[in-house]
Amino acid sequence: MKNENLSTKIELANTLADAAGNIIKQYFRQPNLEAETKTDQISSIVTIADRLAEEAMVAIIKKEAPKDGIIREEGENIASKNGYYWVLDPIDGTSSFVKGLPIFGTLIGLVDLENNLPLLGCVNQPILQERWLGIRGQSPHFNNQIIENSYTNKTNFQLAEACLTSTTPLMFVTPRQQAIATRLQTVCRRTAFGGDCYNYLCLAMGWSSMPMVILESDLKYYDFCALIPILEGVGAIITDWSGNPLNSQSTEILAASNKVLHQQALTVIQSCII
Amino acid sequence: MKNENLSTKIELANTLADAAGNIIKQYFRQPNLEAETKTDQISSIVTIADRLAEEAMVAIIKKEAPKDGIIREEGENIASKNGYYWVLDPIDGTSSFVKGLPIFGTLIGLVDLENNLPLLGCVNQPILQERWLGIRGQSPHFNNQIIENSYTNKTNFQLAEACLTSTTPLMFVTPRQQAIATRLQTVCRRTAFGGDCYNYLCLAMGWSSMPMVILESDLKYYDFCALIPILEGVGAIITDWSGNPLNSQSTEILAASNKVLHQQALTVIQSCII
Repeated sequence: MKNENLSTKIELANTLADAAGNIIKQYFRQPNLEAETKTDQISSIVTIADRLAEEAMVAIIKKEAPKDGIIREEGENIASKNGYYWVLDPIDGTSSFVKGLPIFGTLIGLVDLENNLPLLGCVNQPILQERWLGIRGQSPHFNNQIIENSYTNKTNFQLAEACLTSTTPLMFVTPRQQAIATRLQTVCRRTAFGGDCYNYLCLAMGWSSMPMVILESDLKYYDFCALIPILEGVGAIITDWSGNPLNSQSTEILAASNKVLHQQALTVIQSCII
Repeated sequence: MKNENLSTKIELANTLADAAGNIIKQYFRQPNLEAETKTDQISSIVTIADRLAEEAMVAIIKKEAPKDGIIREEGENIASKNGYYWVLDPIDGTSSFVKGLPIFGTLIGLVDLENNLPLLGCVNQPILQERWLGIRGQSPHFNNQIIENSYTNKTNFQLAEACLTSTTPLMFVTPRQQAIATRLQTVCRRTAFGGDCYNYLCLAMGWSSMPMVILESDLKYYDFCALIPILEGVGAIITDWSGNPLNSQSTEILAASNKVLHQQALTVIQSCII
């Protein structure tokens, strides 16, 4: 993508994050919020805040970048006329949002879908006023400052020193997934549930007091697309459970603070033969 | 407790919260923090921030209220000379703290242990600058404002409309506990893991977008003592799994936004015969 186009897309991503954030802030910590269970997923709910925030972003893209396609969580996808797709999750971590925990995020990815190139990832936390921006091949930013992560180059860590995290153990459904999750939990120093996208952001920031490994399954493209340029930009690793690059069909995610931990986790995964 | 004594204790609780918060802030989101696994609990870790925050609180109590006893998470308990005990957990939610999530809390309870009367509960979230204060028999405060909870009097809710939360499903260890947790998960609208003390505070505040039920086991006194006056003060319910008042030996906790939901959850628990 040409530089002038890229800067237009960055500006658009920030506009989308602002628009979604303004809506979400109005609904956060409001009791008796309309919340309906999605028909396709028993454990997934959608609030009016999800819907309105997504609709606001879609309206802006249609106006500002009418050739770009949209892959979205709540509504129908829109085909691209130029190969670029915005990948939108208005509230990743609805579970935290509905309880009143400020650890959800609006995920905004831009991808060249045919070539499977995640070009841009923007994550916004409107309550804590935190914003992450990753551009393929560049150092990502947190609130306009370049992220410096002290774990990505420290290759002397072992899994036994790492914190393993997954949003919920209920995301591991098949016997193979459960065996892998249990095995990794045994090997790592600590397992911490909860967190959704915020876990990946803590990993990218190097905020955790020990290096991190994230193991998740049952994810959708909009749950991780925006995170890829942010994690890869700092030198962290995010792949599927075979170590392959993620694409729009991936559902099993493995992320780690650095290559060595990622390789160790892959070895554990490969050793689980069920 | 006489009013003049009570106001001294409230002042002391705030001093303890300030002292712990000042220490914790220095260690939050610092990579490579010393963290050691507790020998008594495989899944529990303690950071230098836990230890220093607790030591600071203990030193203040010894100086300002030398007759009061101390029940604490990290160090040895101190016997009371007047029947009052401070019950301290410097960082409840260490798991969130070590990842970099600002949803942990310093729990400071004051209890008349012999009569099992939790007199005062103070919870401090130093990063978000949130403080809760509950006094037995009074309306509790959040950041010096009286808490108004819209769920406590709405008795028309059913469990099927409630959000069930537990910090982790791994806290349910016995077959009976697992059966009860699974049964409640099936009955409630949604299950959300993670959160530690922050779940109880969201419940007390009525922040959640649907009424809440919290089911936990394997807790210690310092994990919930400070929460009792806050939850009871707003009209929410917190008991053990039999519906009895909590005491220093309780480990199984059931909390709900109001009496009706609490009774419905108790009925589910009692129907699980294993």
